[in-house]
Amino acid sequence: MSLFVQKFGGTSIGDLDRIRDVAAKVATARDSDHRIVVVVSAMGDETDRLADLAGSITSTPSPRELDVLLSTGEQVSIALLAMALEALGCPARSYTGTQVRIKTDDVHTKARITHVDCERVLKDLSNGKVVVVAGFQGLNEAGDITTLGRGGSDTSAVALAAALDADECQIFTDVAGVYTSDPRVVADARLLSVVTFEEMLELSSLGTKVLQNRAVEFASKYNVPLRVLSSFVDGEGTRIVSEELLMEKPLISGVASNRDEAKITICGVPDKPGIAYRVLGPIAEANIEVDMIVQNVSEDDKTDVTFTVHRNDFDAAMKLVENVAGDMDARSVSGDNRIVKISLVGVGMRSHAGIASRMFEALAEESINIQMISTSEIKISVVVDEKYLELGVRTLHAEFGLQDGAMQG
Amino acid sequence: MSLFVQKFGGTSIGDLDRIRDVAAKVATARDSDHRIVVVVSAMGDETDRLADLAGSITSTPSPRELDVLLSTGEQVSIALLAMALEALGCPARSYTGTQVRIKTDDVHTKARITHVDCERVLKDLSNGKVVVVAGFQGLNEAGDITTLGRGGSDTSAVALAAALDADECQIFTDVAGVYTSDPRVVADARLLSVVTFEEMLELSSLGTKVLQNRAVEFASKYNVPLRVLSSFVDGEGTRIVSEELLMEKPLISGVASNRDEAKITICGVPDKPGIAYRVLGPIAEANIEVDMIVQNVSEDDKTDVTFTVHRNDFDAAMKLVENVAGDMDARSVSGDNRIVKISLVGVGMRSHAGIASRMFEALAEESINIQMISTSEIKISVVVDEKYLELGVRTLHAEFGLQDGAMQG
Repeated sequence: MSLFVQKFGGTSIGDLDRIRDVAAKVATARDSDHRIVVVVSAMGDETDRLADLAGSITSTPSPRELDVLLSTGEQVSIALLAMALEALGCPARSYTGTQVRIKTDDVHTKARITHVDCERVLKDLSNGKVVVVAGFQGLNEAGDITTLGRGGSDTSAVALAAALDADECQIFTDVAGVYTSDPRVVADARLLSVVTFEEMLELSSLGTKVLQNRAVEFASKYNVPLRVLSSFVDGEGTRIVSEELLMEKPLISGVASNRDEAKITICGVPDKPGIAYRVLGPIAEANIEVDMIVQNVSEDDKTDVTFTVHRNDFDAAMKLVENVAGDMDARSVSGDNRIVKISLVGVGMRSHAGIASRMFEALAEESINIQMISTSEIKISVVVDEKYLELGVRTLHAEFGLQDGAMQG
Repeated sequence: MSLFVQKFGGTSIGDLDRIRDVAAKVATARDSDHRIVVVVSAMGDETDRLADLAGSITSTPSPRELDVLLSTGEQVSIALLAMALEALGCPARSYTGTQVRIKTDDVHTKARITHVDCERVLKDLSNGKVVVVAGFQGLNEAGDITTLGRGGSDTSAVALAAALDADECQIFTDVAGVYTSDPRVVADARLLSVVTFEEMLELSSLGTKVLQNRAVEFASKYNVPLRVLSSFVDGEGTRIVSEELLMEKPLISGVASNRDEAKITICGVPDKPGIAYRVLGPIAEANIEVDMIVQNVSEDDKTDVTFTVHRNDFDAAMKLVENVAGDMDARSVSGDNRIVKISLVGVGMRSHAGIASRMFEALAEESINIQMISTSEIKISVVVDEKYLELGVRTLHAEFGLQDGAMQG
């Protein structure tokens, strides 16, 4: 008798018909003699609707009150799903984050889970009930409602799975799983049956928005077996496991791309210690996240620093850099928000030299100019002009034979 | 420095503009150096919308899950009102029923309050904060969310006022207070500055739906000074107090009317003990509330029983009575759903004979035929054809001089 935590996001329960579909799916799993805990998000765009209400009242809502407001979205979902389950003859019981006691820190609107009490959940499970838990929310030490930030329901599901020592945490989404590349770009992209937590983190941060990164980190830390699969189509989906459990380590798991980046370069600044800090300090203070950072080899005591930010932050970041450029006696500042990042990801890369040069060669053969390069142990990323996105991704997907999954590390 | 509990219903916070208006009103009261606890309902028709969602999922939602669902309505209200207050520079803090710990019994969808914890509320008040509490909801011993039934926010407000030993519980509604009669029927109906709890109970059960009866009973039991006043127009409203506090006891406080009744008569049943029970037992089992009951003096060992029910229950009640009529060998069953009830209410009535006969005489002079009569210590009710409603109410209003408030008991 296995214990599964199943998480369904906003799209999966976007309307009452879909809630009924999810109820049927959950009831079937329970009828197969599994114990089921379901974690749900708010229905469809409900969280946006609530945030808009707050925005109409004030441009600076108190984070505490925002959490009280937003958390109602999941509360509606859990009640309706529990009702739908009971209507199918499947005993069910809903819990808010406060009721399960998903304890978090004090950081309203992006709290982190510190502890999950499972007493009531375990009791209900042993009584044959399906337990339906509100994702995205918890409570802090003072008893105030907190929320975990966008996509936090994934984290709720993983935290519950860890606390309950579940056999698997199943994240149901609107895609069939994790692919070797974006199927909209690469026609013969292949569904991966398994990836490692580390690969998933890289793929996720690269725009394959299947799973929230914090959830993957959490799963990795507590070694919770994860599976991503479709709410709408039956299938095995993709398992996400720790590397030790992987018998065959693929050289390359996938090619990811990200259109959300913009590049800023500050040229001809004096090459002294602390330059990067002086350029990037104000960016960090403005809470703008920086992704890639490259500092070129210096010539004549001058150096260039290039970094990428989210396109939404491009204008703000440009202004900040222009401000410091004057103080720093820089030659020029230039920006480009028509770039994309393309990345090769694979744990097998670690033990194989030559992947990078093979990647650069394949791109060069298609006359794709590389603007920036950044590497990690299991990833190589390049920044190119956005017009090369599809060509670049398809070229690398074919170069490394990802369509037939032949290459193993 | 007074402590007021102010309750605003769904109409008073029907949209974001009205929430801003309520925030301004509350902030003004606080600026006058009062400590304020605000209790709010769900916005406008939100509770109906949520109930409809549940109804679309299943015709028999679990009451426990229904409470989880419905309670989100007030949770949205408290967050938005707290934000609106803070936007005005008025420090505020919201609490759900669970968070205040408004403890109730286990009866989901119509729970009764058993205890209110005030620790956090008192602490916030002493820190100069306005405390915004979700009406209509609480939690039971097991920690499950409960709701108090329609109109339960009035009861929440009174319970909080009692627990906090508030100086006054102010119920803001869409009317200016309690009138001597329905101003839509009687042009010169007068706003009462004060009524007793008992009078309010009679007026309320007679269709002057200003305040929920349970709230009045609760206020009476714990001697909480109540005031009903308008959300939209400034004014003193109507105070509702215990009789002992009333210096001048008015003979008649008001004339109430109720269009929601229907009358059923079963004629010529054997006049034996247990007749009323045999007629009304099945009605009670069907959860149909009976208002007036009259059993006529018997002739030739036969008797007639007449009672009134809500018009919505008329058809169901007729069927039930027709069923028992056969078993009881009754002569006939007749029904009339085109009746109204008109009532005189006043605590001064107790010490004055002759009110009833004066009432009947005034109606007779207008040729209004009385079909049923029922009396209590502070009320006399008659049932008449619905076409006489306006004439009957105006006649009694004038007869007892209610327009100028001259008559005292």
